[in-house]
Amino acid sequence: MDQNDSSRISHQSAVFADGLALDCGQILPSLTVAYRTYGQLNAAKSNAVLICHALTGDQYVGETHPLTGRGPWWDMVVGPGKPVDTEKYFVICANVLGGCMGTTGPMDARAPGAAPWGTDFPPITIRDMVRAQKKLIDHLGIARLFAVVGGSMGGMQVLEWAATFPQMVFAAVPIATAAYHSAQNIAFNEVGRQAIFADPDFNAGQYYATGRVPSGGLGVARMVAHITYLSEEALSRKFGRKMQGRAAPAQALALFGDMFQVESYLQHQGSTFVRRFDANSYLTITRAMDYYDLAAEHNGDISRAFAGTRTRFCVISFSSDWLFPTRESRAIARALNKAAANVSFVEIESDKGHDAFLLDEPDLRRVLAGFLGGCAQHAGLEPSDA
Amino acid sequence: MDQNDSSRISHQSAVFADGLALDCGQILPSLTVAYRTYGQLNAAKSNAVLICHALTGDQYVGETHPLTGRGPWWDMVVGPGKPVDTEKYFVICANVLGGCMGTTGPMDARAPGAAPWGTDFPPITIRDMVRAQKKLIDHLGIARLFAVVGGSMGGMQVLEWAATFPQMVFAAVPIATAAYHSAQNIAFNEVGRQAIFADPDFNAGQYYATGRVPSGGLGVARMVAHITYLSEEALSRKFGRKMQGRAAPAQALALFGDMFQVESYLQHQGSTFVRRFDANSYLTITRAMDYYDLAAEHNGDISRAFAGTRTRFCVISFSSDWLFPTRESRAIARALNKAAANVSFVEIESDKGHDAFLLDEPDLRRVLAGFLGGCAQHAGLEPSDA
Repeated sequence: MDQNDSSRISHQSAVFADGLALDCGQILPSLTVAYRTYGQLNAAKSNAVLICHALTGDQYVGETHPLTGRGPWWDMVVGPGKPVDTEKYFVICANVLGGCMGTTGPMDARAPGAAPWGTDFPPITIRDMVRAQKKLIDHLGIARLFAVVGGSMGGMQVLEWAATFPQMVFAAVPIATAAYHSAQNIAFNEVGRQAIFADPDFNAGQYYATGRVPSGGLGVARMVAHITYLSEEALSRKFGRKMQGRAAPAQALALFGDMFQVESYLQHQGSTFVRRFDANSYLTITRAMDYYDLAAEHNGDISRAFAGTRTRFCVISFSSDWLFPTRESRAIARALNKAAANVSFVEIESDKGHDAFLLDEPDLRRVLAGFLGGCAQHAGLEPSDA
Repeated sequence: MDQNDSSRISHQSAVFADGLALDCGQILPSLTVAYRTYGQLNAAKSNAVLICHALTGDQYVGETHPLTGRGPWWDMVVGPGKPVDTEKYFVICANVLGGCMGTTGPMDARAPGAAPWGTDFPPITIRDMVRAQKKLIDHLGIARLFAVVGGSMGGMQVLEWAATFPQMVFAAVPIATAAYHSAQNIAFNEVGRQAIFADPDFNAGQYYATGRVPSGGLGVARMVAHITYLSEEALSRKFGRKMQGRAAPAQALALFGDMFQVESYLQHQGSTFVRRFDANSYLTITRAMDYYDLAAEHNGDISRAFAGTRTRFCVISFSSDWLFPTRESRAIARALNKAAANVSFVEIESDKGHDAFLLDEPDLRRVLAGFLGGCAQHAGLEPSDA
């Protein structure tokens, strides 16, 4: 397979010629932010909702994906009549900084006509991602976002938005996330990175000109990550010990091949992923997640990140999520309470694991619709029930 | 690095020229079982304890390892005055079938003077491992083992011993194990296998003559497995978000390198492992674990595996073990109860995860010493307290 298909399509984007100053001290000389919008911005520019995507997501939150042909990635949440209702709200979703769907990242040329950044792309942080989004929001002439909503790494961005630009966030919904990346999560990310490094096609990150990509390593990285997105219950229910088109184990003993359905499923996840994602972006973005530590940015106390905040928060976790377990969401809610913030905390019962935030969870839809509806009244977007 | 160092040392072993008939239908033409013993077999040959090792363990349970120079792997449990007391018991530990420390496995020549088996080594099962051990026990002239003890994959062997040769097992102690491998465990094993396959030095399993081994892939396999051996709590306590000899993240942003201590630790685990373990053995043994399904071997009912058993069982789990969670040990205990077996079930409180069975857990030592002491009285090995 040659290089990531994403480089072949053009994405709607905004270009910021003044670049972006990064937490690491380096300055990106030019910044492109690729994004999509859905619905209409009202005259007061007060109905904008920013959706922040997760590690392997992108800006195509509410439409068919131009590369994969798959449906909108948050179809349960974003669209006409859905909790993030595109008939009421102006929905914005941008590819994150460091990504590979049009926003500036390691696939891009370091300078016009030069070779791609590759692994020389500067290390970035979740806050850098948010700063890039802030430029887009300013560019769109929006002074205050009605809401910022996201799950997993998207939830980290939601927290960072509320901490860094509090006056610009009326409501914030961090879902299935944490205020820092745990040792276990860093460890799983590191396995993925080592798998990429071990692939000879990685070629020290300069594979773009070779006609080959480190698909083996990136596929393994995706496989291990995918296991962490599911609960043990979900895997057991979905696959159990079912064999792949064969009889019982005793009759079908063979050393290799996708004997168990769960193996075939994971291999499929790995091989489809490498067609739409860039390995250097994977390295850059997982690193940003690992660095994320909101408390460390605020003298060791998460609550200081939210001192004096007027943002309304709805913190949501899922009971079977072991990647970002409920206790980490509860810690966020506790810090918000300590900061005297307006906060709701909901743990949704689900056996689907971390992925639940992307799946058909009626309770998630109900909580989101209820919270955003209430906030819309307070923001004067909807007539009050009273 | 050239081939696995294990091939350079000689191991104490027994050779069975009649080979071994395997579950897959193939017959190994010759079988070597490498083993170690500790303590003295009594005149009645009634004091033998067989220790079954886990995936990456070996026969050097009670002495310094000849390759790594590290201490005995079950130092907390096996030795003079310890729960498996080598002053009372004759302790036997054999390298498993398919292993790489002297017992017949993929590293061995298919026939005298021929090339190594590599990936052509027949697929084996946990029951095949037990059959190989049975040949050794017969060879040592032991009609009945006083006890069979093992954790993780060792516990699978314990269950299989009790199910297959019930008259030969007076007491059985399956620790931190299950009666089948779950979908999640199969999935983690598959990630490791795919990492090995993706390594170009794997060379379709015939790397022995190339002077290179798939150390990158095997290292990644070890890293992902190692995460599953630890609890989130243990990783957090041990490493948290501590950086590797650097200042706070904001001052030390860098894309690569072992930034976090947990990364450095995992990389070390991976790189030391490849020096002592063979990739084809890893493939063969993980496959055997995946196939393991005691219920499937007995018409879908674990309790039938133990019908009429007179063996005394002590089933032990650890509260923070998420690889072989307590519910799976409880299912074993329930099946044994259904079979009217003599069974104790103990869940030990620990925050160390699956690895707890190898670590200093005073409760594990107490439970083991108490259970084996009681059984020794019943077996007539020790004077009764009464």
